[in-house]
Amino acid sequence: MPKINSQEFSIKDISFINSIKSIAVIGPSKKREYFFLKNHADYFEGPIYAVHPTVDKIHNFNKENIYSSLEEIPGEVDFAFIAVPPSQILSTMKACVKKKVKLVTIFTSEFSDSGTEEGIQLEKEILKQAQNKVRVLGPNGMGLFYPKLGIAWRPQFPTTPGNIGFIAQSGGICNIAIYGANAIGINFSKVFSFGNGADLDFVDLIYFLSNDPETTIILCYLEGIKEGRIEDLKKVLNQNKKPIIVLKGGQSETGSIAAKTHTASISGDKRLWEAFLKQYNIIQVNTLEQLLYAARLIDCYGIFELNNLAVFSISGGYGVLLVDLLEKEGMKVPPFTPKIQEKLNLKLLLPGTSSKNPLDLAAQFFFENAVYETIDLALTDKKIDGLILDLPSFYLTTVFKSMDNQSFESNMIESLSLGHKHNKPLIPIIQRLNRPEERDRISKKLIERRVPVFGDPLEVIPLLSKITNYKKRLEHS
Amino acid sequence: MPKINSQEFSIKDISFINSIKSIAVIGPSKKREYFFLKNHADYFEGPIYAVHPTVDKIHNFNKENIYSSLEEIPGEVDFAFIAVPPSQILSTMKACVKKKVKLVTIFTSEFSDSGTEEGIQLEKEILKQAQNKVRVLGPNGMGLFYPKLGIAWRPQFPTTPGNIGFIAQSGGICNIAIYGANAIGINFSKVFSFGNGADLDFVDLIYFLSNDPETTIILCYLEGIKEGRIEDLKKVLNQNKKPIIVLKGGQSETGSIAAKTHTASISGDKRLWEAFLKQYNIIQVNTLEQLLYAARLIDCYGIFELNNLAVFSISGGYGVLLVDLLEKEGMKVPPFTPKIQEKLNLKLLLPGTSSKNPLDLAAQFFFENAVYETIDLALTDKKIDGLILDLPSFYLTTVFKSMDNQSFESNMIESLSLGHKHNKPLIPIIQRLNRPEERDRISKKLIERRVPVFGDPLEVIPLLSKITNYKKRLEHS
Repeated sequence: MPKINSQEFSIKDISFINSIKSIAVIGPSKKREYFFLKNHADYFEGPIYAVHPTVDKIHNFNKENIYSSLEEIPGEVDFAFIAVPPSQILSTMKACVKKKVKLVTIFTSEFSDSGTEEGIQLEKEILKQAQNKVRVLGPNGMGLFYPKLGIAWRPQFPTTPGNIGFIAQSGGICNIAIYGANAIGINFSKVFSFGNGADLDFVDLIYFLSNDPETTIILCYLEGIKEGRIEDLKKVLNQNKKPIIVLKGGQSETGSIAAKTHTASISGDKRLWEAFLKQYNIIQVNTLEQLLYAARLIDCYGIFELNNLAVFSISGGYGVLLVDLLEKEGMKVPPFTPKIQEKLNLKLLLPGTSSKNPLDLAAQFFFENAVYETIDLALTDKKIDGLILDLPSFYLTTVFKSMDNQSFESNMIESLSLGHKHNKPLIPIIQRLNRPEERDRISKKLIERRVPVFGDPLEVIPLLSKITNYKKRLEHS
Repeated sequence: MPKINSQEFSIKDISFINSIKSIAVIGPSKKREYFFLKNHADYFEGPIYAVHPTVDKIHNFNKENIYSSLEEIPGEVDFAFIAVPPSQILSTMKACVKKKVKLVTIFTSEFSDSGTEEGIQLEKEILKQAQNKVRVLGPNGMGLFYPKLGIAWRPQFPTTPGNIGFIAQSGGICNIAIYGANAIGINFSKVFSFGNGADLDFVDLIYFLSNDPETTIILCYLEGIKEGRIEDLKKVLNQNKKPIIVLKGGQSETGSIAAKTHTASISGDKRLWEAFLKQYNIIQVNTLEQLLYAARLIDCYGIFELNNLAVFSISGGYGVLLVDLLEKEGMKVPPFTPKIQEKLNLKLLLPGTSSKNPLDLAAQFFFENAVYETIDLALTDKKIDGLILDLPSFYLTTVFKSMDNQSFESNMIESLSLGHKHNKPLIPIIQRLNRPEERDRISKKLIERRVPVFGDPLEVIPLLSKITNYKKRLEHS
C-alpha cells in the first residue's frame, strides 16, 4: 500500500516532534510547587524555560531561564506546556503563534469538558487563535511523553526509549500505563494524552505513530471519536501496516455516560465499533492490563500464529486446566510427532510424570536439565507453534531443589528463554500465589531476556488467540 | 432440610478424623530423606511412629518411635501414611486392619492410574483387604492436610487452622492451593488429595465437609466422578447448606483425555456438567485462582448479592472500564440517591473530579479524609450494595502525598476496610503494574482486616456475579 500524502485528507502533520529542541512551561504554579516545570526539567536536556508574569525565583531552577513572557525568550521554543488559568488561554495562544511554537499541550481544563456553552466556545476560540500554525494537544490533557527526548509530565517516569506508541484522551490511563511499563518490560516511543482533542485527535495521532520510524506497535485507549472523523480514520487505517491494539471504553450504557462526563466523548454503539475494529484488523482488548500485555507479547515474539501448543506443567491438574482454557479459545494441544514423543519418553522416567502433551514434569522438574531438554525437544517438533508452561512460585525455592540455588535459577532462566532459540513463543505462567520475592527476581531476569512472564492463565490465554487471529486476517487480506 | 443419615446411602463416615491422636508413616524412604515422615513430624504434636522393616536410625527423629512393624507399636494408631512399594501394599493393609487404624493415605502410585489390568486388579484387592474397616485416601494421593491437628504432607505448609475445605484428586493442585492460601488470606480446615479415589471419593468427602463443624465453604477441583456415584452425589448436595465452588477440569476434548491420563477420570460432557452444577446451585469457576479468590470473597463478606455498585477510581478512564466490565457481567452502576449525591458534591471540589457514580477522585485522592469520607457516604446509600475501587500502586508512594507516609497509609487501610462497617462488600483493586513492595505491605494489612485485595479487574468482577447469582438462586429455592 502506498503511503497516503497527508494533504489528501485533513490530517495534521506532527512529524516535527521527533526533533523538539526546546521547551517552555507557561504558567508554572507555585501552589503545585512548579510540578510540571520540575518534571520536564528533570528529564529534558535541551533548553527549558519557565514563563510567568511575576515569578522570578524558583528553587532548583536556573534563574536565567525564567521569563515574564514568551516573546522575551531569546532562542526558539519548539514545544510549550501550558497551565495558565482559562481566562489567559487566548492571549497565551496568541503569544505561541507569534513565537512560532510548533506544539503546545494545554493542561488547563474547564473548556468543552465542563459541558458549559462558555467552555465549548472558548475551546473553539483556542483553535481559531492557533491558526493551524501551532498544533495543540488538549485542552484537559497531559500532552506528550517522549522518553528519548526527555519530555515527561510526571516524576519517576521510565527513561528508556522504546518502540511502543500509546494514545489516550485520559491522562490517568496514560499514567497507569507509563508507570506500569517497566514491570511488564515494555518501553514507549511516545505517549499522547490529548484530553478534549480540540486540535490533534486519534486520527492525527494514529497517523503519526503509523508513520513514525521509532514506533512498531500502536496502543489506544479510545472512548469515542468525532462523527466527522470516521472517513479520515478509515484512510489512516488503510495505509497502516503496524499492529494496532485498542481498548474501547464506554461500551456499557452507564460506561458511555461516564465517558461523556470524562472526556466529552460519544462512545457509539458497541457492536458497530466491534465490527469496525474487526474490519480494519485491529486487536480489541477488554482491560488496560490486556492492552499492555498484548503489546508485551508482540514485542517479545513478533506477530505470531499459535494453532498448536505444547503445555508443560508440574501439576497434572493444572496442565488439564490450561488445555481447557486454550481449547476454549480455539487453540489446540495436539500429540507430539512420534519421533519427538519417543525422545520425550526417554526423558520423563519418574512415576507421576507424563510425557504426552500436555506434558507433566512432576518431580522430574528438579532433575538437572530436565526442563531445558524437554522444552528444547517439544519446540523442535514441527507440529508445535509454541509452548505454555505453568510454574507455581514455591517451586522456585530451595526446599525442593537437588541442584544448588544459583545453577537451578540460571538453568530455569535458560530453559524459559528457549522460545527465542526456536523462534516460537514460550509463555511462562509463574503463579503469584506464593513467594513474591523469588517471583520478582526471576521475572526481572526473564524480562531482560525478552520473555513475557504472566501470573494467571486468564491474563494471557485470551491474548494468544487475539494475536493469532490478527495474524490470520493479515495473511488473508 | 433434614440431615440425611449416612446409612441411607452408601456414604462412608469419616467424622472420626476430627479426633486423630496418633500417626504412623509406613515405609519412610531413606532415598527421599524421610520426606513425608519429617513433614508430618514437623507439625503433629501427638505420637508419630515410623514403620520400616530395616531402618533403625533416622536423623532428628526419636529412635524409640521407629518400629519394624505396625503391630509392634504399643499405642493406638489412628492414621497411617503409606509409602511402601506396590508389592507390599496388601500386607500393609492387612496390618492396618489388625491394628485398627481408622484412616490411611496410600501415597504409592502405579495402580489404576497406570492403566494396566494388573494395577486395576491390585487396587481392587486393596479395598477387599481394607474390609470397610480402614478408610482409604488414595492410592496415588497425598491424603490429608489438617492444620488444626498438624497433619501435613509437605514442608512449610501454613499452620493456621481455617474454615475452608478443599477436595481434589490431584496432589499438585492441592499443593498450589495450600502454598497460595496465605498470600490470599484464606485458611483451610481440611484439604483432601484422594488420588485414584479407590475408597473415599468426592461424594464421601463433600458429605464430610458439608457436615464438618470446622468448615463453612467447600472447594473442589473435580476431573470427573464415577458413573455409579451420581445418585449419591445428588443426595449429598440436596442436604448440603454450605456454598460449594467447583473447578471442573477436563472440559475440552484434549483436556478430558489428559484428565484420564492424570487420574483415570471420566470427565463427561461439558454441558451436562454445567447443567448439573447449576441445578444444585454450585458455583463454577474456570481457574484455580478463581476458586481461591471466590472463597476469599465469601470468607470476607459472607454470601452477598451485588446488584448495584459504586465505582471509585483515581483515573476517570479506568472507572469507565470498570463500569463496562461490571455491566457486562450483569451488575449495575446506578446514580447515587439525590441526598447522598448532594453530600458527595460537596466533598469533590477539585477540577478533574467527578462526584457521580462512577466517582472519579482524581487529585482529591491525596486530600486528608477524602477517600474515607466519600466511601463512607457512598456505602451509606441504600441503593448501593457494594463498592469497587481502583488504586494504581504508584499512588501508594510518597511522591504524590500531601500527608505524611504513616497517616496516609493508615488512613488508606481504614478507608478500604469500610465495607465491614456498612456490612457491604468493598473490593479494592490495587494494580500490580508498579511498586510491588508498597503493594505487598498494604495488601498484607488489608488481609488482616479481612479485606480481599485484587490486582486486575478480570480477577474479581466475574466472581462478583457468580456469588450474586448463587445468592439469588439460594433465595428462590
